[in-house]
Amino acid sequence: MSRDDARFMALALSLGRRGQGRCWPNPAVGCVVVREGRVVGRGWTGVGGRPHAEPQALARAGDAARGATVYVSLEPCAHHGRTPPCTEALIAAGVARVVAPVSDSDPRVSGKGFARLRSAGIEVTTGVLAEEAMRDLGGFLRRAGGGRPHLTLKLATSLDGRIATASGHSQWITGRQARHAVHAMRARHDAVMVGAGTARADDPMLTVRGQGDVARQPVRIVVSRRLDLPLMSQLAQTAREVPLWLCHGPDPDAALADAWDGIGAERIACDLTGRQLDMEAVLLALGQKGLTRIFCEGGGSLAASLLGAGLVDELVLFSAGLMIGAEGLPALGAMGLDRLDGAERFRLQELRVLGNDAMSRWIAS
Amino acid sequence: MSRDDARFMALALSLGRRGQGRCWPNPAVGCVVVREGRVVGRGWTGVGGRPHAEPQALARAGDAARGATVYVSLEPCAHHGRTPPCTEALIAAGVARVVAPVSDSDPRVSGKGFARLRSAGIEVTTGVLAEEAMRDLGGFLRRAGGGRPHLTLKLATSLDGRIATASGHSQWITGRQARHAVHAMRARHDAVMVGAGTARADDPMLTVRGQGDVARQPVRIVVSRRLDLPLMSQLAQTAREVPLWLCHGPDPDAALADAWDGIGAERIACDLTGRQLDMEAVLLALGQKGLTRIFCEGGGSLAASLLGAGLVDELVLFSAGLMIGAEGLPALGAMGLDRLDGAERFRLQELRVLGNDAMSRWIAS
Ligand SMILES: NC(=O)c1ccc[n+]([C@@H]2O[C@H](COP(=O)([O-])OP(=O)(O)OC[C@H]3O[C@@H](n4cnc5c(N)ncnc54)[C@H](OP(=O)(O)O)[C@@H]3O)[C@@H](O)[C@H]2O)c1
Ligand SMILES: NC(=O)c1ccc[n+]([C@@H]2O[C@H](COP(=O)([O-])OP(=O)(O)OC[C@H]3O[C@@H](n4cnc5c(N)ncnc54)[C@H](OP(=O)(O)O)[C@@H]3O)[C@@H](O)[C@H]2O)c1
Repeated sequence: MSRDDARFMALALSLGRRGQGRCWPNPAVGCVVVREGRVVGRGWTGVGGRPHAEPQALARAGDAARGATVYVSLEPCAHHGRTPPCTEALIAAGVARVVAPVSDSDPRVSGKGFARLRSAGIEVTTGVLAEEAMRDLGGFLRRAGGGRPHLTLKLATSLDGRIATASGHSQWITGRQARHAVHAMRARHDAVMVGAGTARADDPMLTVRGQGDVARQPVRIVVSRRLDLPLMSQLAQTAREVPLWLCHGPDPDAALADAWDGIGAERIACDLTGRQLDMEAVLLALGQKGLTRIFCEGGGSLAASLLGAGLVDELVLFSAGLMIGAEGLPALGAMGLDRLDGAERFRLQELRVLGNDAMSRWIAS
Repeated sequence: MSRDDARFMALALSLGRRGQGRCWPNPAVGCVVVREGRVVGRGWTGVGGRPHAEPQALARAGDAARGATVYVSLEPCAHHGRTPPCTEALIAAGVARVVAPVSDSDPRVSGKGFARLRSAGIEVTTGVLAEEAMRDLGGFLRRAGGGRPHLTLKLATSLDGRIATASGHSQWITGRQARHAVHAMRARHDAVMVGAGTARADDPMLTVRGQGDVARQPVRIVVSRRLDLPLMSQLAQTAREVPLWLCHGPDPDAALADAWDGIGAERIACDLTGRQLDMEAVLLALGQKGLTRIFCEGGGSLAASLLGAGLVDELVLFSAGLMIGAEGLPALGAMGLDRLDGAERFRLQELRVLGNDAMSRWIAS
């Protein structure tokens, strides 16, 4: 891998991330057209997945695309979907070389895009920054292959891992900048998810706010076995404005189900493990509905279920400068862990100061 | 305050920190001699407090000290102690100006050093980086005025604030680099302190290791009301090599007291509050014995007592990339906090990656 290849691919990946949270069920792809070492065109997937990144970058490049190298963060599509195949646009533009990190896992595309380009005499290089691309597009790729979406778990705690005092007092643990960062993270995910406990206790809105124009609000998801959720809540009242999906078990209360249907919520029936929802089944169902990236904001019981089942890909922790003590409400519920060897380890990815809070980002390893 | 003054004072402060942990009961002072914008001499307090920083810096500067500006992180002493007064050395060297952040709180020195210099025609500037100096020398200054030493509390936890599983399994929460940093921090303090629970459970050594030659090992302190500590421990076995101080209540078991005396430990009787040692009284007693900086490494009960009493000046948290869950042993014991407004807030001072662990440093605000 040449240094230039890595540099331009990093740019394509960062362009692709601009579309995160707004493209599902399609991937958020970035594309850079480079001619004689200079960027002559850039593009990224539009809201809802159209237009694709490649035709936009090629359009910007115009004639300069002829003989150019194109960096694209995912294998270009070769099939006629809602848009014409990107492979044909690349061929028509006369590009000399296409660089991509990974092939698409969508069986209609996988490998076919690269093959089509090669058959047209275009040089194809793959594997450049594949690990980074898997991080950005892992949810889409896994889902397209029948797997679950990418799951980010966020927790905001005191320095000793608590979210409230014993009496339940919890306002203002983290500061304004941390809360702003949370909204920015929501915007980069297709959906925001909480457990029923949080929905009942906090009456949250779960929308993206304070980020300027939001092209597409993330879907709001609540996990509750029997739909035992307050019908007078903010979530209920806004269900027709911003999608509200309720994941429940096989046996919801019929009257409640009707009420939520009437309010405009979407219900997704999922399997149980024991007396709770099987979170792997929940995530698979959400993937089947097109979601590629889910942002879970707790609470502690849901977080423990997800961690315990090894379903957390990314962990974001906001730590506020105070100590609450052992009677305080723990950010993470019981996990039934006996030995530390059994705990899933996370790799430290990023550490950032946000006002007076510390933000750390960790990746499952 | 000129930018140069701040720059050279920052250098003097950083030189002063080299002596931290090795000067007590004296302050760890740094000194820089500057002639025409160039550093011509540097010095810091020697092991045990002698020689002082100023004469060393002046000696390095030699003739260049004449007409120079001297930056020193504490008011120069004006009294005849074990060393001749530094004020006289500065006057004899013919320096033109002395810059210092704060005056000494030792009544034998306070204000007198500056007055003596001024009376000899030397320009004196004070208040430069006073806040930083108070951070570095606060323990000494407060103690010299009858107060308690500086207290740093260190905790090493999982991301959810735990130190072991419910069954007590706790090895290897943080990695090698974090443990190395802990030893470097121990070396910068006059003493390392733990609660009796930790001494009983872990049989720790509490020495500085892996830092090359250690000029002076920190005193090791264990807090235990009735001296109920294992006589076959590593601490007991090494009490004649590295000082071991036991803080206990007014009513220790007589036989245990004799045994610990015989082993070579030093005993310090302190008052109680309720059934535990009054930690403010403990710290005042330790200050009276000359300690200026204490590094407390837990456990959770002692940490809670110290935090609850508002005795923690600095908090260092090592966070390892794993989640243990709510049954795990909490890093911090019960604090009896009802509302968050009642919690002491800490200001974020430093954030650092250490291997795969995050280190954050917080200052009481
Ligand atoms: N500071 C913060 O960052 C923050 C963030 C979030 C929450 N919180 C606080 O956390 C508290 C709520 O936390 P919580 O732990 O009680 O509730 P939670 O995790 O939000 O929700 C747990 C509930 O979700 C449902 N559920 C269904 N399947 C589940 C599964 N597989 N695993 C776990 N839960 C499942 C169950 O309710 P059903 O019986 O309805 O199925 C369960 O009682 C609130 O006090 C809230 O204020 C704080
Ligand atoms: N991972 C880490 O960073 C780390 C660090 C330290 C400890 N630990 C673990 O923590 C556990 C020990 O913690 P712990 O909370 O049980 O014990 P602790 O805080 O180390 O010691 C508590 C004991 O200290 C004595 N004490 C006297 N005055 C006190 C006061 N004012 N406040 C509190 N304690 C006072 C009491 O014993 P007497 O009855 O003798 O007076 C009390 O039981 C061990 O399992 C250890 O392995 C882990």
